[in-house]
Amino acid sequence: MIFDFDSEEYVSILNFKGGEGHFDAKMHDDGKCKIILGKVEPGCTSGLHTHERNAEVIYVISGAIALTYDDEEEICLSGQCHYCPEGHAHAMRNLSDSEPAIMFCVVPEHHLG
Amino acid sequence: MIFDFDSEEYVSILNFKGGEGHFDAKMHDDGKCKIILGKVEPGCTSGLHTHERNAEVIYVISGAIALTYDDEEEICLSGQCHYCPEGHAHAMRNLSDSEPAIMFCVVPEHHLG
Repeated sequence: MIFDFDSEEYVSILNFKGGEGHFDAKMHDDGKCKIILGKVEPGCTSGLHTHERNAEVIYVISGAIALTYDDEEEICLSGQCHYCPEGHAHAMRNLSDSEPAIMFCVVPEHHLG
Repeated sequence: MIFDFDSEEYVSILNFKGGEGHFDAKMHDDGKCKIILGKVEPGCTSGLHTHERNAEVIYVISGAIALTYDDEEEICLSGQCHYCPEGHAHAMRNLSDSEPAIMFCVVPEHHLG
C-alpha cells in the first residue's frame, strides 16, 4: 500500500510525550506499525519516553534534531537515522531556531500475539 | 544511536530475493529491526517475497519505484511510503531507465520471544 503524505494534513499533537510545544504528524497506525511523516518546529520538543515493547526509527529528511538517548546526547542531521531499540528511552528537540525538522518515523511493535 | 549513511559503503546484493541485477544496501541489523539505506539502479528488481513474521516499510527519498503488492501494481514516488504488512508479499523495480531510486527501509520483526 502507498501513503501519499503530500495529500495528507498534519495533525498537531500538543506537548508530545510531555514535551514543549507541539509535534505535527501525518500518521498511519494498523496496530503493528505506526508510520509517520513528522515535523518538529523550532522550540518544540518531545518528552523523554521509553519504548517498552516496540522501537522507533527516525530518518531525518530535512533540518536537524538533537536527541537524548538513554543518558547520552546525540545529533541527527538530514540523511542520517536515529534508532531507539526496545527497552531504550529517547527525547528530541529541533536544533534550529528558524527551520522545522522533517522526519520519517516508524514505530514497530515487536511482540504481537 | 545514530546511523550516518554518508560515511558508509553500499554492499551490493546480487539477484535480491531472486530479482534482476542487484540491490545496493547500507544495512544495520540487530535481529529486531533491519534498517537500510537502499539504492535500486535502472534495470534492477527485487523478486516477489512474503513478509511472514515481519513487515517492510519503504520511504522513497529520490527517484521512483514500481511495486507488485500481493496481486496489485502500485507506484511509489519520492516523498511517498510503501508499506508491506506481515503476511503480505511484494516485489520492486526502478521505474526510471536512467536514474537510481534511493530509499530508506525498515524491516521490523513482530514476534520476538
